[in-house]
Amino acid sequence: MFELDARLGNDTLLVGDMALSRVLLMNDRQFPWVILVPRRPQIREIIELDTAEQQLLWAESGQVSVALRKLFSPHKLNVAALGNVVPQLHLHHIARFTDDCAWPNPVWGRQPAKPYSDQQAVSRIAALSSELPLLSTKD
Amino acid sequence: MFELDARLGNDTLLVGDMALSRVLLMNDRQFPWVILVPRRPQIREIIELDTAEQQLLWAESGQVSVALRKLFSPHKLNVAALGNVVPQLHLHHIARFTDDCAWPNPVWGRQPAKPYSDQQAVSRIAALSSELPLLSTKD
Repeated sequence: MFELDARLGNDTLLVGDMALSRVLLMNDRQFPWVILVPRRPQIREIIELDTAEQQLLWAESGQVSVALRKLFSPHKLNVAALGNVVPQLHLHHIARFTDDCAWPNPVWGRQPAKPYSDQQAVSRIAALSSELPLLSTKD
Repeated sequence: MFELDARLGNDTLLVGDMALSRVLLMNDRQFPWVILVPRRPQIREIIELDTAEQQLLWAESGQVSVALRKLFSPHKLNVAALGNVVPQLHLHHIARFTDDCAWPNPVWGRQPAKPYSDQQAVSRIAALSSELPLLSTKD
């Protein structure tokens, strides 16, 4: 039974589910930052998914990257599975800009998150939802 | 025509070529750290590869992850495409340990590299080569 890691849940806002992965928005308005979490229990590494699931994860990752590029026109995308602190497999997608507060460093652990306002969060989640093949909540 | 970025060339040792990617060993004995660079010109983002090449890249990435896990039994793998400093698409695979010098932080930009001795480099490249489907140099 899949259960989202509590820390991932606390740090993010729910966008929805794709076929394999839960789609989360990092609650940090400094970066457009989407996290995919495959809804499979006890998985820490990409290579612990079976081959078909790995392919699906990368297809979904590509869809997130295309959406971030379309919505935000970043200078660079950062795509990463680290998991040193939260071992549950999760895949970061971060739209980076040459004038963002961490550039050119990686974003992790360098500056405290600045949460979205409610209105900003609703707007950003709506924009992402419109670009991603999310399952309907009835599925 | 594919040409390896000069900075990537300077920071790494050549392991060989897989079907799509050049395989490089980061010349830093603090971490078992393999970089894949798809041998395609002018590519900055994973999603700029065509779909078949993306699938091949992820298959090769999985082979590198399996090899690192078999050879080094790390606590965690870090897999990442960042490219903020070197925009040529390159995919990091880093075997992480709870007692490595950067744990639990990401490795980038935190500590200077410590190069391998010649003997260490030969041995590590041989070990990786034995676990990866490298093209023969005649291919």
